[in-house]
Amino acid sequence: MLRTIFFLSFLLIISSHASVQDFCVGDLKAPEGPAGYSCKKPSLVTVDDFVFTGLRSAGNTSNLTKAAVSTAFAAQFPGVNGLGISIARADLAPNSIIPMHTHPGASELLLVTQGSILAGFVSSANDVYLKKLRRGDVMVFPQGLLHFGINAAAGNSIAFVSYSSPSPGLQFLDFALFANDLPSKLVEKTTFLDAATVKALKAVLGGTG
Amino acid sequence: MLRTIFFLSFLLIISSHASVQDFCVGDLKAPEGPAGYSCKKPSLVTVDDFVFTGLRSAGNTSNLTKAAVSTAFAAQFPGVNGLGISIARADLAPNSIIPMHTHPGASELLLVTQGSILAGFVSSANDVYLKKLRRGDVMVFPQGLLHFGINAAAGNSIAFVSYSSPSPGLQFLDFALFANDLPSKLVEKTTFLDAATVKALKAVLGGTG
Amino acid sequence: MLRTIFFLSFLLIISSHASVQDFCVGDLKAPEGPAGYSCKKPSLVTVDDFVFTGLRSAGNTSNLTKAAVSTAFAAQFPGVNGLGISIARADLAPNSIIPMHTHPGASELLLVTQGSILAGFVSSANDVYLKKLRRGDVMVFPQGLLHFGINAAAGNSIAFVSYSSPSPGLQFLDFALFANDLPSKLVEKTTFLDAATVKALKAVLGGTG
Amino acid sequence: MLRTIFFLSFLLIISSHASVQDFCVGDLKAPEGPAGYSCKKPSLVTVDDFVFTGLRSAGNTSNLTKAAVSTAFAAQFPGVNGLGISIARADLAPNSIIPMHTHPGASELLLVTQGSILAGFVSSANDVYLKKLRRGDVMVFPQGLLHFGINAAAGNSIAFVSYSSPSPGLQFLDFALFANDLPSKLVEKTTFLDAATVKALKAVLGGTG
Amino acid sequence: MLRTIFFLSFLLIISSHASVQDFCVGDLKAPEGPAGYSCKKPSLVTVDDFVFTGLRSAGNTSNLTKAAVSTAFAAQFPGVNGLGISIARADLAPNSIIPMHTHPGASELLLVTQGSILAGFVSSANDVYLKKLRRGDVMVFPQGLLHFGINAAAGNSIAFVSYSSPSPGLQFLDFALFANDLPSKLVEKTTFLDAATVKALKAVLGGTG
Amino acid sequence: MLRTIFFLSFLLIISSHASVQDFCVGDLKAPEGPAGYSCKKPSLVTVDDFVFTGLRSAGNTSNLTKAAVSTAFAAQFPGVNGLGISIARADLAPNSIIPMHTHPGASELLLVTQGSILAGFVSSANDVYLKKLRRGDVMVFPQGLLHFGINAAAGNSIAFVSYSSPSPGLQFLDFALFANDLPSKLVEKTTFLDAATVKALKAVLGGTG
Repeated sequence: MLRTIFFLSFLLIISSHASVQDFCVGDLKAPEGPAGYSCKKPSLVTVDDFVFTGLRSAGNTSNLTKAAVSTAFAAQFPGVNGLGISIARADLAPNSIIPMHTHPGASELLLVTQGSILAGFVSSANDVYLKKLRRGDVMVFPQGLLHFGINAAAGNSIAFVSYSSPSPGLQFLDFALFANDLPSKLVEKTTFLDAATVKALKAVLGGTG
Repeated sequence: MLRTIFFLSFLLIISSHASVQDFCVGDLKAPEGPAGYSCKKPSLVTVDDFVFTGLRSAGNTSNLTKAAVSTAFAAQFPGVNGLGISIARADLAPNSIIPMHTHPGASELLLVTQGSILAGFVSSANDVYLKKLRRGDVMVFPQGLLHFGINAAAGNSIAFVSYSSPSPGLQFLDFALFANDLPSKLVEKTTFLDAATVKALKAVLGGTG
Repeated sequence: MLRTIFFLSFLLIISSHASVQDFCVGDLKAPEGPAGYSCKKPSLVTVDDFVFTGLRSAGNTSNLTKAAVSTAFAAQFPGVNGLGISIARADLAPNSIIPMHTHPGASELLLVTQGSILAGFVSSANDVYLKKLRRGDVMVFPQGLLHFGINAAAGNSIAFVSYSSPSPGLQFLDFALFANDLPSKLVEKTTFLDAATVKALKAVLGGTG
Repeated sequence: MLRTIFFLSFLLIISSHASVQDFCVGDLKAPEGPAGYSCKKPSLVTVDDFVFTGLRSAGNTSNLTKAAVSTAFAAQFPGVNGLGISIARADLAPNSIIPMHTHPGASELLLVTQGSILAGFVSSANDVYLKKLRRGDVMVFPQGLLHFGINAAAGNSIAFVSYSSPSPGLQFLDFALFANDLPSKLVEKTTFLDAATVKALKAVLGGTG
Repeated sequence: MLRTIFFLSFLLIISSHASVQDFCVGDLKAPEGPAGYSCKKPSLVTVDDFVFTGLRSAGNTSNLTKAAVSTAFAAQFPGVNGLGISIARADLAPNSIIPMHTHPGASELLLVTQGSILAGFVSSANDVYLKKLRRGDVMVFPQGLLHFGINAAAGNSIAFVSYSSPSPGLQFLDFALFANDLPSKLVEKTTFLDAATVKALKAVLGGTG
Repeated sequence: MLRTIFFLSFLLIISSHASVQDFCVGDLKAPEGPAGYSCKKPSLVTVDDFVFTGLRSAGNTSNLTKAAVSTAFAAQFPGVNGLGISIARADLAPNSIIPMHTHPGASELLLVTQGSILAGFVSSANDVYLKKLRRGDVMVFPQGLLHFGINAAAGNSIAFVSYSSPSPGLQFLDFALFANDLPSKLVEKTTFLDAATVKALKAVLGGTG
């Protein structure tokens, strides 16, 4: 009995640390800062804030790339806000492609959980690092470098990709160049692509200018 | 006189930098983010924001651990918000114990200012680092590792502990395991403690489930 | 032809940036610093430095926890050195347990790729966050907090866990307390476990003292 | 046509990442945190947020130092908020001086774009690093160290100085000592300057106390 | 005289801090780590380590882009090692282009010091931020995003660009895609460029495969 | 018995994480990098690496400032290397002064453990924050700002000061200005002190030039 009392009073004494910050579940409606979203009030946080179920099933690959990418970044999965990590799921139907892209804000770890993927990245020194990955293989892409993946299996392939930031960003090369109003002349001059190519890809991707 | 004018005008010219951010005294009522609390308006900041007087006297050690920990983390001492440091005071009556705990968010520097403390931590490699510290001795506990202290003096001992973060967190092992609703079966399975032990400690610490 | 020349000379001009550092593949034999291992010479780096194949197959679960954890931290997978991310594989046979543990240096993202896992963590405020995860579910464990997993499926379960650091550390509670020479008296005093329990677990885990 | 459809649907699929955070243009009226200002809503951001035109012309050097410093820190140029960089312009008329000062929050890169500047800094070891810089020369001043510049040309000199933080801070030694209400006795005791000197400089700089 | 002695002895007392680290001039021949180069011994450091004179004159623009970029990153200017900043000079002859590129490891601040430059970047959301910059204008490009510049003046233009890292990296899009042995089929599939275009640019840029 | 075997084999399985990095005790003779010293080999680390006993007794205050500062930075206490924290002891005899100084690399937390200290700092906005601290009081000085202390007790005062870095740096204003070969003319011009004052202080502090 005495023991009980002591513990409870000990508990009281250290309770001054009640508001320590172990985590900062993002409140997507509150102000956002350079370090991420504002924190949801601790009293409103539940286990479901730390669990994301949106990657259970495949994304819709009924498109010509035959690939789909589903992200669990801080904007979709506020529990990772401020914790330096996030994840996404890539589904690759036969003959599918994850086109050339970069993550401006994070390094990426790709894990193949089904099928096989031919993955690669290019360094600042323009060296190519290319590998056919089997199920269970892991490949790391350093922050900000161009990389891509191609389904190397006859059937579907699946990868789960982790990032060293809750908001890694995602810049697809073709969308950056051809899916906006960046004037064609500027695209041509800065990429050395000819006018016909730029025009064709702008048409396909809905770019103007 | 001319000199005066020049200085004043010089002053005006560089006054465009008026809003530089040397510090960010925490506004505990404003939104909190992953990097800490929002800043109090500079015009409202006074010297008292940078001074904490709550560690002047001993905490109440009239409990069975006979120890008390008083924290000056950002939540109690908003002046350290964003500055990468905080402090706490530990009072250890004769035969007292600072039980096994971790700080998930900071390394700790323990300074003995009165008496003597037997302090230790355990590394990821399960190595034990144990030392009897005298007055004036300092010991560092790397971030996140289990550590503890025991009064090694006949009388009272006092330590001041600094942290490499304004919000180091504080997880006492026994509270984490036995002072909440974590189901007993889960505690038993994940700690290899037997049911009787878990039940007894849950009873003492007010745990349920 | 003229175009060719121009590009090549353009290439030469900017080649002064040849030694930019996109990555720092760890050289495990060279000095290690607070930020990680020294970098392997760029000229010796190949794609295989960025690929880890050691997680293809299950770890050996022929032990009483019936679980196995295989890590691809910087020490096993030097390609992640300096990139802020790493990964591990957890295999859980029926009735298996990943015992209570912490990662002192990273947050963790757990992804279930087979079966089902009951996972949980405890915060500094001693709140319990507990969830039964299905295949494809993701759960995040904030840095340094106690957490665990239990196979919730009838058959084998598999999880891949990513970390926000190439060297997250790994401190299993039972090993930290009972698998070393931390004197039994100290374990008892700092955990409130009784002598018999400490003695029994020390015996099982090979602890001395 | 089929191609168009595929791209558009591919576009839809990945649009879940719409709110990734590439940048965080500062909203100077919203709460500020340790990592900087809150972000302006992405939909309100325009190219003008990323462009600063306030350094086009010389600052007013009609003062006795004959120098002017114009800053483009986050408070003046919110586009750099959270991006780890900022800039300022220094205009030095003949015989002008950038007095001894520090930037508590950033290292500085000084670039001479016109004239010549004699620049220097002093290290913690009290070593002096002094150099006469010509047009096109660059000098780096490590964070927090006392440094200064003197026009070394017969005519005007101009420098552009970059900082490793959007809010580097700026503490001019003479203003810190003599342009406020720090009691003269304290200035004397802590600087070893005599009362007459302190009094004279306080008078010139508008200090009281 | 007494005063002298006191100061000298005071000096001795605090000399225990002799090896504080204000800076870490890179020793390009010693091991490199994730945080940068090893430090040159303090006793060997001179002011010339902190000064870079290689940007005094224009780079050679006698190539078809008519542009030249000269870098003062840590590899060329070891004084910035560890200080979070670096710089480069861009010379743009009439009709010149700084082609589409990224810096995987830093944000960039572009300052026009002569002429006029049409500069732009594309965000992860594929938005285009485009501006014609005059002499004295500054534009910031967030880390990792595609950006470019075109001389908008009749004569030569010059820009000095600062980076928020001593090793920002530099990945030119065309070099990454066409100046190496990345198989043409892979380039085509991951960029949606046709075979003829890829072949032509590979030929121009010296790519194989 | 079976239990023992299981635990031991479980131990073996996870032993692949043997080289995780919880800490990085500085090897003062190995290369140093921007993040700190190289790590001592884990097998050579003992508890004494984490304990510093050099602050047990007062520094020698037999000098005219009547103060002494003893540091436990990484260079003296290699156990704090890489852990983001360090400490120092200040002894203040009656009428003693800790002169105006900065720490370029860290914020400081001052704790008075004996006597009373009048402490203050000046912000970038030239505001003065001044407070008489009693035993047990804590004051924080934001990184890089000028600050000082004066013994406010009739007898000896003692303070222990923690820093948010293992290598905070320490720049005493008078030493930086007058204890080196910085030419007197430059000191005069950049501080607005007159020639006589500079000459006198240079003489006292051993400065030349």
